[in-house]
Amino acid sequence: MRFPPIMRNLKRGPQVVLPKDFGMVAAFTGIGKKSVVVDAGTGSGFLAIALGNIAKNVVTYERREEFAKLAERNIKASGLRNVKIKRKDIFKGISERDLDLVTLDFADSEKVVKHAKKALKEGGYVVGFLPNMEQVRDFVRELEKNKFSEVFTMECITREILVRETGMRPENMGLMHTVYLTFGRK
Amino acid sequence: MRFPPIMRNLKRGPQVVLPKDFGMVAAFTGIGKKSVVVDAGTGSGFLAIALGNIAKNVVTYERREEFAKLAERNIKASGLRNVKIKRKDIFKGISERDLDLVTLDFADSEKVVKHAKKALKEGGYVVGFLPNMEQVRDFVRELEKNKFSEVFTMECITREILVRETGMRPENMGLMHTVYLTFGRK
Amino acid sequence: MRFPPIMRNLKRGPQVVLPKDFGMVAAFTGIGKKSVVVDAGTGSGFLAIALGNIAKNVVTYERREEFAKLAERNIKASGLRNVKIKRKDIFKGISERDLDLVTLDFADSEKVVKHAKKALKEGGYVVGFLPNMEQVRDFVRELEKNKFSEVFTMECITREILVRETGMRPENMGLMHTVYLTFGRK
Amino acid sequence: MRFPPIMRNLKRGPQVVLPKDFGMVAAFTGIGKKSVVVDAGTGSGFLAIALGNIAKNVVTYERREEFAKLAERNIKASGLRNVKIKRKDIFKGISERDLDLVTLDFADSEKVVKHAKKALKEGGYVVGFLPNMEQVRDFVRELEKNKFSEVFTMECITREILVRETGMRPENMGLMHTVYLTFGRK
Repeated sequence: MRFPPIMRNLKRGPQVVLPKDFGMVAAFTGIGKKSVVVDAGTGSGFLAIALGNIAKNVVTYERREEFAKLAERNIKASGLRNVKIKRKDIFKGISERDLDLVTLDFADSEKVVKHAKKALKEGGYVVGFLPNMEQVRDFVRELEKNKFSEVFTMECITREILVRETGMRPENMGLMHTVYLTFGRK
Repeated sequence: MRFPPIMRNLKRGPQVVLPKDFGMVAAFTGIGKKSVVVDAGTGSGFLAIALGNIAKNVVTYERREEFAKLAERNIKASGLRNVKIKRKDIFKGISERDLDLVTLDFADSEKVVKHAKKALKEGGYVVGFLPNMEQVRDFVRELEKNKFSEVFTMECITREILVRETGMRPENMGLMHTVYLTFGRK
Repeated sequence: MRFPPIMRNLKRGPQVVLPKDFGMVAAFTGIGKKSVVVDAGTGSGFLAIALGNIAKNVVTYERREEFAKLAERNIKASGLRNVKIKRKDIFKGISERDLDLVTLDFADSEKVVKHAKKALKEGGYVVGFLPNMEQVRDFVRELEKNKFSEVFTMECITREILVRETGMRPENMGLMHTVYLTFGRK
Repeated sequence: MRFPPIMRNLKRGPQVVLPKDFGMVAAFTGIGKKSVVVDAGTGSGFLAIALGNIAKNVVTYERREEFAKLAERNIKASGLRNVKIKRKDIFKGISERDLDLVTLDFADSEKVVKHAKKALKEGGYVVGFLPNMEQVRDFVRELEKNKFSEVFTMECITREILVRETGMRPENMGLMHTVYLTFGRK
């Protein structure tokens, strides 16, 4: 699995957001160095760090203390100072306002769509990281119920091409699926 | 074709870099708000603008005046002030130094790999946007000849998932191929 | 769209089964020249003809007269004499027995799974051609309810590779999705 | 890896032709129960057996005695009586005539294209199983040199969809690449 240099010294928990999926979020939302972002749940902190590398500020919500600690070490190791962990249950609400982006990567994340709506500025995006099709359906319905515009869902498959003396060909085995990415714009 | 808000008012030339491919570059190189980038050739300026939205500074080389003018209008329309067009033939060399990233999107780009090597800082990346397999092979060979490390090639396929009352399914027709992306790290 | 010679003189209705999907059915069920098959609904008859080209006998169910007529012409044009159209509603049952394969390509096909169970011999397969994920779920549930073994679902994506003087590369646009294929073995 | 029942009791050598790729050959050439086929090299015999299950007769060329023996056992285990192994070097020529299909799955197979041309009947197909892009290029060139019509190359990617109580999603890891299939019609 390939990671950019900033992520190579981090400790990985069971499931981390992969560069390919982060790249889709960066590319389709157009976040940049002025963007203010809320991320949840933190997990190992990989997505928060990737976002922090691009955005102005990132607040990442994590209610499980063991993950918050792991992510804290990872954020420190990344050298970023604009990523803050918030030990709070995001199901209870998002206190930040005027956000450019809210990323949601946990089960039942559709229940937080209404909080994301309040926290986003006009034109801001919420993105759900959704392993299963049923979650996509529920997330899309909640976006529509909350009057998000530009609701769309993408999957991204990357394939490494091997270039060797004996010939060029795609790798034989690889990642067929990680998550579907569902986007909504306020 | 989906584009982030910053790119929606731009004029498109015949071939523009798509968000999915830009996203791969951002994700696998780890560029961020401190990064200094050289891009060539400018074309319509889509890649330069996407890079400028994230990086500190972007210089984009274009020797064809009609493209330089189109890109100039697009950069202005994007509102970015950190993207500069350089009307110069990059085959003659790159004058910038200590770069974090050089992106090359034109025919025979492998001939510029040696210039990119000089212009990059240690740990910086060069990325080739390569439509054909033969170009991948030539680019990889030139990277190896110039002692780049971490040479790898990716292709990225995105598929939109339609979520409708009548059912969820991937879109029927879509983009099967744009470019291969070949990365080398100094 | 590429078709084998036997299908090139046929008239196509709105949606025909494509060779790639037929190929998956042939490959994963292992039907051969001794196999006896029931197919429904006939539509333009493409799947029935592809099956008839391999199997011993094919009976194909179609209740809509205009499709039955179109398929009849197509079967005649194919030169096959082992494919018979049955103008009957398959929701009311399958009268054939000891079948090697039942292929179902119509809405609500999960309701015919119980009929397929009766009509198949031990070790025979039923295959659903299912455009949407919800149909896959319903079909799988019905297979499990009817105690089918080896229940699995595949999607097949083919990409044409262009080999030209100017370079080798995959085609730019192509078919991203036709149907999911759900298999069950009695 | 899923195989049809006829292939489940076979012994597998290091690389066997997978059902998905056999399915493409069956689907795009339109071989059926009247077809006469030559296959080379036999290897473990998987492709010869899959072809024999559909075609009238298959002769499969293998010059390495250990593979010929393995394949012989596998053909016997399959129960097919229409598949014959020929212990001969196919680079020296194909003695059969009026063939519907020649399948070539070995290194330097482009050198046998001229023999396939002679052995095929008008309208018959040759198919190369080609792991690398360079082999595709060489095979295509040889087909063009030998005036084959309908020269095309496909790759086939299958993805299994998991349908579970906890949700529907594609499998996480899978086969990204086996071979390119290059077709030529006489």
